[in-house]
Amino acid sequence: MITSQKALEIILDNTQDFGIEEVPFLESLGRVLKEDIKADRNFPPFNRVSMDGIAILYDTFAKGQKDFYVENIQAAGSKQVTLKEDINCIEVMTGAVLPRHTNTVIPYELVIIKNGMATIDTKNVINGQNIHPEGKDRKTNDVLIRRNGIISPAEIGILATVGKSTVKVAKQPSVLIISTGDELVEVAEQPKAYQIRKSNVYNLVSLLENLNIKADTKHITDDKLVLKKKIEQFLINYDVLLFSGAVSKGKFDYLPEVLDELGVEKKFHKVKQRPGKPFWFGHTVPLGVSEQGENKSKKTIVFAFPGNPVSTFVGCVKYFYPWYKKSVDIVFENHQKAILAEDFTFKPALTYFLQVRLENKKGLLIAVPITGNGSGDLANLANADAFLELPDDRNEFKTGEVFPLITYR
Amino acid sequence: MITSQKALEIILDNTQDFGIEEVPFLESLGRVLKEDIKADRNFPPFNRVSMDGIAILYDTFAKGQKDFYVENIQAAGSKQVTLKEDINCIEVMTGAVLPRHTNTVIPYELVIIKNGMATIDTKNVINGQNIHPEGKDRKTNDVLIRRNGIISPAEIGILATVGKSTVKVAKQPSVLIISTGDELVEVAEQPKAYQIRKSNVYNLVSLLENLNIKADTKHITDDKLVLKKKIEQFLINYDVLLFSGAVSKGKFDYLPEVLDELGVEKKFHKVKQRPGKPFWFGHTVPLGVSEQGENKSKKTIVFAFPGNPVSTFVGCVKYFYPWYKKSVDIVFENHQKAILAEDFTFKPALTYFLQVRLENKKGLLIAVPITGNGSGDLANLANADAFLELPDDRNEFKTGEVFPLITYR
Repeated sequence: MITSQKALEIILDNTQDFGIEEVPFLESLGRVLKEDIKADRNFPPFNRVSMDGIAILYDTFAKGQKDFYVENIQAAGSKQVTLKEDINCIEVMTGAVLPRHTNTVIPYELVIIKNGMATIDTKNVINGQNIHPEGKDRKTNDVLIRRNGIISPAEIGILATVGKSTVKVAKQPSVLIISTGDELVEVAEQPKAYQIRKSNVYNLVSLLENLNIKADTKHITDDKLVLKKKIEQFLINYDVLLFSGAVSKGKFDYLPEVLDELGVEKKFHKVKQRPGKPFWFGHTVPLGVSEQGENKSKKTIVFAFPGNPVSTFVGCVKYFYPWYKKSVDIVFENHQKAILAEDFTFKPALTYFLQVRLENKKGLLIAVPITGNGSGDLANLANADAFLELPDDRNEFKTGEVFPLITYR
Repeated sequence: MITSQKALEIILDNTQDFGIEEVPFLESLGRVLKEDIKADRNFPPFNRVSMDGIAILYDTFAKGQKDFYVENIQAAGSKQVTLKEDINCIEVMTGAVLPRHTNTVIPYELVIIKNGMATIDTKNVINGQNIHPEGKDRKTNDVLIRRNGIISPAEIGILATVGKSTVKVAKQPSVLIISTGDELVEVAEQPKAYQIRKSNVYNLVSLLENLNIKADTKHITDDKLVLKKKIEQFLINYDVLLFSGAVSKGKFDYLPEVLDELGVEKKFHKVKQRPGKPFWFGHTVPLGVSEQGENKSKKTIVFAFPGNPVSTFVGCVKYFYPWYKKSVDIVFENHQKAILAEDFTFKPALTYFLQVRLENKKGLLIAVPITGNGSGDLANLANADAFLELPDDRNEFKTGEVFPLITYR
């Protein structure tokens, strides 16, 4: 048995590159950016009027003139006009180009306009005021968004403004989620007394949906030959297989054996953690490019989580999530931590994933234990928000101590 | 001019109920649950074997017997079998029903099985061990998930397990996002020197997408008659209109006037805040049920944000988000706060929405100011993660002070 830390290390040593695809920018929300986004022009692209009012030549005002004849209007979206006479002014709108031969904008609030004459009603005018100068925010070719971040609404607006109607993002792995266990029936079915409905696969489907991965699902009965035949095909067709169940010591837990027979290389089986101890991880052995030029260098990665609901759930957020993030090269990962709200004891020498409810108290992230009834108690996941990762080298955890946090909301 | 706090109060006094709809459970991720989800059976629904091994009668072991003839196998998903002889045992698998006439499970790790005889290799056996008793986690009709929360992957699994193949969720408002400003061109177009591409509408589209609202978008030119004619129709067809631009003092900022002429009741115009001061908010006046029995009791809500990109963005997360959440009755709202990382000065007597990058340092949420160049600097939104809300009643803000936080990633 290996430690949870070692398990994660091995998993992160087996990331895969799934390439890049180009998508319409509005569909890129939540995806991982795969090109640096640069300014196509200066930001702003022209000396931009930033208040509605009048544009003047500052010198004229400085010489003592207060009344300015309104010579023209400069609307936003109109070609730049020119002030013809130094002693006049031009009405200007926010977002418009500053008219040629003007350099200062007085807002309407400080101007009285009557019969085409604007009278400035203040002494406090600063040369160049209320102009957002060309290139002040960013220069042409400045990098506005670095590659390898998740695209949020903030980035969508920037993609739009630089004209990236399509954008390069990380291609998603093709993932198949496979449930095993003859006790499982479909959600719409009425289970018999000794059956239960499938739930783990749907937990996984939605956990992956939160990463923008659309996974397929399959169920296989506890029959070794069927299992072997189907998995053989799945290993060819998918980048990643996520199993739930059939990895423990049961008579029908054929999965480790079948994967071995299919040549899938076991990297580890069993991790010193609770829940989720019988976790199995491995991958197919890449064959390289064959003599026929066929590329068989692709590994298929297999995460086989134990079948208890909380075990599967924690397996996905603790191991699959970081594997995915490293695979698509997300550079920045905020290492979340939280503060334990009350003393907690856990005796076994295992990493314990404590279910917690999170509270933000004056900027402190407080984790309140919501223990539930163990790895079978899936209803408890709805009462909690996250897992607090308690290390395996001690068994007393004190109020106020800080531990790594894995959130799932 | 009213305070930001007062503006929010008025907005929250004008929430709307958009009703309930039923969707397939897998499509409910991120939606707001509108029914209490109850246990359809006990959890677990039977005395569930929780370790692979053998099931015995504890009394037989207590009397000193160590060797048990394996009488039968109880697989997961199979009908409950019965132990016929007190002195025998049954092999049992995790997830199976505990066989009748047995009460204790010894895991395979502590048993040697040879020629159909299981020898127990430990003295430490507890009566009733390794059984997850029927109803231990939850009883039939216990509420597993309360209505009015956002459905996360944890809830999806529970919906599956209780057989909710469809589920009641809050219906989303129909929202139209309208840009104004003749300087704006489409994302795929090459702007002329005095033009810029639309970006605010796409910021808004994706901010709403993060609430699972699919908004429509329109652009209207700065022409009063056109504006009036189009908005008249939009007020009939949508629950909410979100405008960006045309609410300030410009000659072509017709929006407040047009809304007034269309009978849209202004609740306020201008808020003591930066950015986003010229924010306009109002709604249509509900007519009640007409003599013809036509229901005209619906209000259309109008949020008209100033056109600078950061103003529109902060307007949406500060005002539209809480309005939506209260409208769909989300009960729990974690009031996020963060700790200011460095001294900051802001002179005007306005609520200041300071752009910040967030860092989690040992469970403390630290907000590092990323000020940028004001409300026109949309590229700065990509460098920050959130807004820290600095109150309007002072101008010095010190390192370590705690303020409300509005995140957008």
